[in-house]
Amino acid sequence: MPSLLHHPLDPSSRLVRLMCAEYGVPLDVQEIKPWLREPTLLEINPAATLPILLDEGDTPIVGILAAIHMVEDLWSPNVVTGLVPADPLPRAEMWRLLEWVLTKLNDEVTRYVLEEKIVKRDQRGATPDPSVLRVAKANLNEHMLYFNWLLATRSWLGGDSMTLADFALAAHFSTLDYLGDMDWSKAGETRDWYSRIKSRPAFRTLLNDRVVAMPPHAGYADLDF
Amino acid sequence: MPSLLHHPLDPSSRLVRLMCAEYGVPLDVQEIKPWLREPTLLEINPAATLPILLDEGDTPIVGILAAIHMVEDLWSPNVVTGLVPADPLPRAEMWRLLEWVLTKLNDEVTRYVLEEKIVKRDQRGATPDPSVLRVAKANLNEHMLYFNWLLATRSWLGGDSMTLADFALAAHFSTLDYLGDMDWSKAGETRDWYSRIKSRPAFRTLLNDRVVAMPPHAGYADLDF
Repeated sequence: MPSLLHHPLDPSSRLVRLMCAEYGVPLDVQEIKPWLREPTLLEINPAATLPILLDEGDTPIVGILAAIHMVEDLWSPNVVTGLVPADPLPRAEMWRLLEWVLTKLNDEVTRYVLEEKIVKRDQRGATPDPSVLRVAKANLNEHMLYFNWLLATRSWLGGDSMTLADFALAAHFSTLDYLGDMDWSKAGETRDWYSRIKSRPAFRTLLNDRVVAMPPHAGYADLDF
Repeated sequence: MPSLLHHPLDPSSRLVRLMCAEYGVPLDVQEIKPWLREPTLLEINPAATLPILLDEGDTPIVGILAAIHMVEDLWSPNVVTGLVPADPLPRAEMWRLLEWVLTKLNDEVTRYVLEEKIVKRDQRGATPDPSVLRVAKANLNEHMLYFNWLLATRSWLGGDSMTLADFALAAHFSTLDYLGDMDWSKAGETRDWYSRIKSRPAFRTLLNDRVVAMPPHAGYADLDF
């Protein structure tokens, strides 16, 4: 069985877990805290990032881009029911939005929240900086306006079909939701979209996640949130 | 003819130009300053990022991930002479290193240098902050140690064959080199590698680039640098 070095709240790890669940691939997960930069991790990945996918062979598949392509190559059922559109233009739209989530949303929102609320728990005496969290929240509101605007005319982020871009955004939102940083009252169309994606069987694995001594925010696992 | 909205020193735009030159695809380029956030750009790409590829149709291909995949789909000659390895493991290694360059190297080095030296030229009264440039330089030294280590046992970044990862790193280094931020005396194996890649016909287009009122650093266009 393939295994994944992950952290339960790392959005890129969540994206790979969602893909594998959607494709019916059982995944053995092994928790790791990349910010501790332990030698065993650095040996596999000097960048100290997640996810890291381990399949049959000895060679670890490192990073979200490598993992996405490997999962797609090995396990995507076919172009119709897979997560990557077959037509070039919808596929380009998927990559555009995936890049938006993996770089822009991550840089402006998610990584701040994770740094303040999760990484700092392992730093003696450190506490979350409210001014950083305020910036992240303000940035998230701007992103939300864009996603609401997109989803006002589209069923899914990239168009008529669910794609990897939906899973990527849902992975980030589910991390933020666990930590109580999603304001669903401002989410409009995006709330309906999240409700649909949260009801998918593939999503169940994420909803059972628990971080030690940090239970999820109310509503995290409710399908009717 | 396909055209590219780019900035001459934007490394992701350079990567697409290198790919197209390598594949023999003529490209019409149109310069843009994304940091000015002009309405015509925001309408095409609310993230205000480059590159943006325009082919026959009306739909712009936005962002480096979408552009890479589109160029590869449309114009890669075949799996033997193309820039994406056919075998899954070398391909995963290519994606790992591409992610390293596009996110880690960019976040820790290139974007600081571009912000301080290029973007600030359009901000009245702003000047480059030497402390930021010092951090970027120190970070670059760390990256260089890793690339030297990799290239001590490999002909190309990802292994025996040149891949997209080589072009991605060369795109960033060529931007830094233009601005005089590459210290080749510390580059060791990476200098030999850059010398080889700089001699490729595909690289010529970049070496003729000039930014208004900012000539390239000495040695930028020399093959024997």
